[in-house]
Amino acid sequence: MILVGQYDSPFVRRVAVTLHHYHLRFERNRLSVFHPAMVEINPMMRVPSLIIDGGETLYDSGAIIDYLDEMVGPQKALTPRNGDERRQILQAIAMATGSMEKTISVVYERHFHAPQGIAHEWTVRCMAQLSGALVHLDAHAGEPWYLGRKFTQADVTLGCLIGYLKLRLPEAFPLGRYPHLERLSERCEALDAFIKAKPAPDELMPAKA
Amino acid sequence: MILVGQYDSPFVRRVAVTLHHYHLRFERNRLSVFHPAMVEINPMMRVPSLIIDGGETLYDSGAIIDYLDEMVGPQKALTPRNGDERRQILQAIAMATGSMEKTISVVYERHFHAPQGIAHEWTVRCMAQLSGALVHLDAHAGEPWYLGRKFTQADVTLGCLIGYLKLRLPEAFPLGRYPHLERLSERCEALDAFIKAKPAPDELMPAKA
Repeated sequence: MILVGQYDSPFVRRVAVTLHHYHLRFERNRLSVFHPAMVEINPMMRVPSLIIDGGETLYDSGAIIDYLDEMVGPQKALTPRNGDERRQILQAIAMATGSMEKTISVVYERHFHAPQGIAHEWTVRCMAQLSGALVHLDAHAGEPWYLGRKFTQADVTLGCLIGYLKLRLPEAFPLGRYPHLERLSERCEALDAFIKAKPAPDELMPAKA
Repeated sequence: MILVGQYDSPFVRRVAVTLHHYHLRFERNRLSVFHPAMVEINPMMRVPSLIIDGGETLYDSGAIIDYLDEMVGPQKALTPRNGDERRQILQAIAMATGSMEKTISVVYERHFHAPQGIAHEWTVRCMAQLSGALVHLDAHAGEPWYLGRKFTQADVTLGCLIGYLKLRLPEAFPLGRYPHLERLSERCEALDAFIKAKPAPDELMPAKA
């Protein structure tokens, strides 16, 4: 399998952490989403993409992880196939991936507009949506992992969200404001699967081709 | 159950179509995402939200539909729980929801910036991503439904995408360019579940509170 994308994207990183956690072997293609050749891999020029054995290319971190979960089976999968626990995990992931999208919206708004052209109403709204989600997630986080004793895909996704916030929008994650998420992030980043999927200093988004 | 959101959002509409298709009874709260009271329903101020019996509020159209699929069981569910068909459906949905996001990005860019402040590079990129996805989806669409004889969640989501494009960004869906998707849209819009979830003329996004 070949994972396409830079680890600076929290969506790429959550797939990479999942692959490492499952001990699935893969190569990586670090092509930027802004490189013209990306359209040959994904007609929507998005990452992550996962080229699976046989040559089919899968899109979207959620759909890719769903495929990997089925591949490793219910005993190893980080999201159970049904039940209350699945619902709780999917809800935490929804809040975390929504937060990633809001963060990226702010990062892109600042990247693609001159300072005087930034839509203040829009970025203020995105930041409010982001802090609303972080307050909610912090209030619902268990110990040591989000669901309590069990490490799940909620932890993978939250760990990738917080790592991304610290890197690209640190003002949205001031130290001390979200103590449960802070500890969760530290525990995640200490795991082998997270260490192996750390963004390199030259993996920056949005990057030019 | 109470579905929160306006049918002008293709994400809300896909949940509504699914609820109607499953013959699940629900009420609706048409509160705008821009109304300050939305934060009390969803800390991220996003739609759809689904308030389920017992009072828990679910977020994210994909996670909500996953919950509804489990509720109605594998015989009725529009997405099977595993296998090749699940992968194909999730991939079509990934491409369709990605297209919805790109469309919304263009709509919001135009809404929140003065004409001279619109980021040309950004909107051109979003439109290219959108047309890349539509070309891919049109080339992969079966007859009469996306997967062939079977009506699935891929059809629900594609139908909602195309309905939204026709309504809010018609230049991205010129008649004749995507013939398979055009026919698919006509078949979807003729279904009872789609008719019941048509956006009313006053359901407009982005709307002011």
